[in-house]
Amino acid sequence: MLEEKNPSKTALSALGEFALIAHLTQNFKVENKSSLVGIGDDAAVVEHAKERTLISTDLLVEGIHFDLSYMPLKHLGYKAVMVNLSDLYAMNAHPQQITVSIAVSNRFTLEALEDLYEGIALACKNYKVDLVGGDTTSSTTGLILSITALGSAPKKKIVCRSGAKENDLLVVSGDLGGAYAGLQILEREKAVFKVNPNEQPDLSPYSYSIGRQLKPEARKDVVELLNTLNIIPTAMIDISDGLSSEILHLSKASGVGFQVFEEKIPIDPEVSLICEEFKFNPLTAALNGGEDYELLFTVDQKHYDAIKSHPYLTVIGHACENSRGCNLVTGLGQQIELTAQGWQSFSEE
Amino acid sequence: MLEEKNPSKTALSALGEFALIAHLTQNFKVENKSSLVGIGDDAAVVEHAKERTLISTDLLVEGIHFDLSYMPLKHLGYKAVMVNLSDLYAMNAHPQQITVSIAVSNRFTLEALEDLYEGIALACKNYKVDLVGGDTTSSTTGLILSITALGSAPKKKIVCRSGAKENDLLVVSGDLGGAYAGLQILEREKAVFKVNPNEQPDLSPYSYSIGRQLKPEARKDVVELLNTLNIIPTAMIDISDGLSSEILHLSKASGVGFQVFEEKIPIDPEVSLICEEFKFNPLTAALNGGEDYELLFTVDQKHYDAIKSHPYLTVIGHACENSRGCNLVTGLGQQIELTAQGWQSFSEE
Repeated sequence: MLEEKNPSKTALSALGEFALIAHLTQNFKVENKSSLVGIGDDAAVVEHAKERTLISTDLLVEGIHFDLSYMPLKHLGYKAVMVNLSDLYAMNAHPQQITVSIAVSNRFTLEALEDLYEGIALACKNYKVDLVGGDTTSSTTGLILSITALGSAPKKKIVCRSGAKENDLLVVSGDLGGAYAGLQILEREKAVFKVNPNEQPDLSPYSYSIGRQLKPEARKDVVELLNTLNIIPTAMIDISDGLSSEILHLSKASGVGFQVFEEKIPIDPEVSLICEEFKFNPLTAALNGGEDYELLFTVDQKHYDAIKSHPYLTVIGHACENSRGCNLVTGLGQQIELTAQGWQSFSEE
Repeated sequence: MLEEKNPSKTALSALGEFALIAHLTQNFKVENKSSLVGIGDDAAVVEHAKERTLISTDLLVEGIHFDLSYMPLKHLGYKAVMVNLSDLYAMNAHPQQITVSIAVSNRFTLEALEDLYEGIALACKNYKVDLVGGDTTSSTTGLILSITALGSAPKKKIVCRSGAKENDLLVVSGDLGGAYAGLQILEREKAVFKVNPNEQPDLSPYSYSIGRQLKPEARKDVVELLNTLNIIPTAMIDISDGLSSEILHLSKASGVGFQVFEEKIPIDPEVSLICEEFKFNPLTAALNGGEDYELLFTVDQKHYDAIKSHPYLTVIGHACENSRGCNLVTGLGQQIELTAQGWQSFSEE
């Protein structure tokens, strides 16, 4: 797919930098009134009127954050946008613009970048976000993607990590561990493929988990639901590094402890089956797996009735005195201290 | 400097990702009232009140955009910020926030990153800009830096590339070609060093040009001057790829041609001497060298008196009918069509 030598593919050197940007971004339409000047000037111009502007940014590096042997470029483009939008939703904000910078080695053809931008365009369309700028350059090895997302929210609706209070309910959207389980399947199939490239695996029993890994969705729907329910969380974060790590972030920022009930943590049956196959505890996938991009938030207890039976949402615990720390309460009533074993960029493993 | 094996240096793996971010950013103070939430949440929050928000972003890759054998990390940090602020000044805007994302291989020590962030901090201090977010991760090879800058400007003061009109004056700040001349000196000394590592070159005759390459300044002063003079340019761009390329951008966006007078193009005497030493035309350095980060803008002729004698500014030509194209008028009255030979990311040279 990425071979430059393929005569039906176009080498990037056949286009100049500006022609490349123009080509890749030609199908992007600006949809938000707040996007005033987009690609093609020294800076983009936006106007969020009376709302505050929120900014999140992520840098994704081939070989560290993604493996193109099983991550199609279109999915990568989509996922890279989701990662950033998820951060804005975690502030209860409304994403409106993104900038996309890429650095690519000459191993990538124009057609490969078209696939990447197709995924970015689909994400922009689905989430009504405008591509307003970026940078396109070369790299010595591999693909590097840097996305910055801008959004807005009225002052009173912005939710930081720091507002959780004792006795607030701890709520998570969707289910957890799926992206990690999907990754295990993909890594296994990659290893099998190396040994026997002709084997065609049946991945259909794993489709939910693989989808969670390859094509996550940011929880716009949850933010809209909270808005409809007139609920403003007291604190919120998105789950990128695993439930444990995020609970510890909320705890530190808010100065409260948390009691989390093992049996309440939502895990899809398919994920449990995969964990059985790989002989690890599904709870480990949920607590430390990461990349689920669900929202984790705290709300005042008065909202319990509105939240408890909603299919998107699960109450998994509550905030407590800071001195009690963050603990998982098992089915047998044991308390296990939560520790962050999420993804560590700089570990030497 | 970058050797991980040095026992007095600290491996990045000794810190977690969050501890590393906390350490590197501990000395950054938030100075702008518009920076409401900075590092440490899912997104930064800013409020540019009644002004519009402007965003520019750049991705810098080791081995493509910089060479650490002669670019000290502190200078790199400073320059990376300048590159982005320059884009905002080119819109006549006021930079206020930056986000900094880095990916580093394990060849970098904590001390190396401290140097990098020292340069970033100095740039923030000198230009009154707040570091409000970013991402810190690992790379498989080398250093990658992605910076996004946010600024604001009142609607009426924003200057795009598209407003130049026939007969407008074409004005450039400072002088040109210095960064390119400095790069030639640094590349030569690198080659000499490879042959004879003990030779200590005397670089003092080249200090201006080397400074232009290693520690450029964004032209905040020029934007302030224009404000003081009550001049709003009709179009503006910063010179990152060379004068020719930028004139062609203004021409294309504004739908006008340009006449540029060779003898008016400001070139520092030191740059001319270096060009003589390297046997190339100083004009080539000015037209195609790039990285000078000066501002190039057009103004109505009525501002001629206010601009003509200002030491920062030089009128180098004027806009003309689009059909006449963009030409350099030599001392002998010849017209030479301007072509973009600026830096091309994807050329196969």
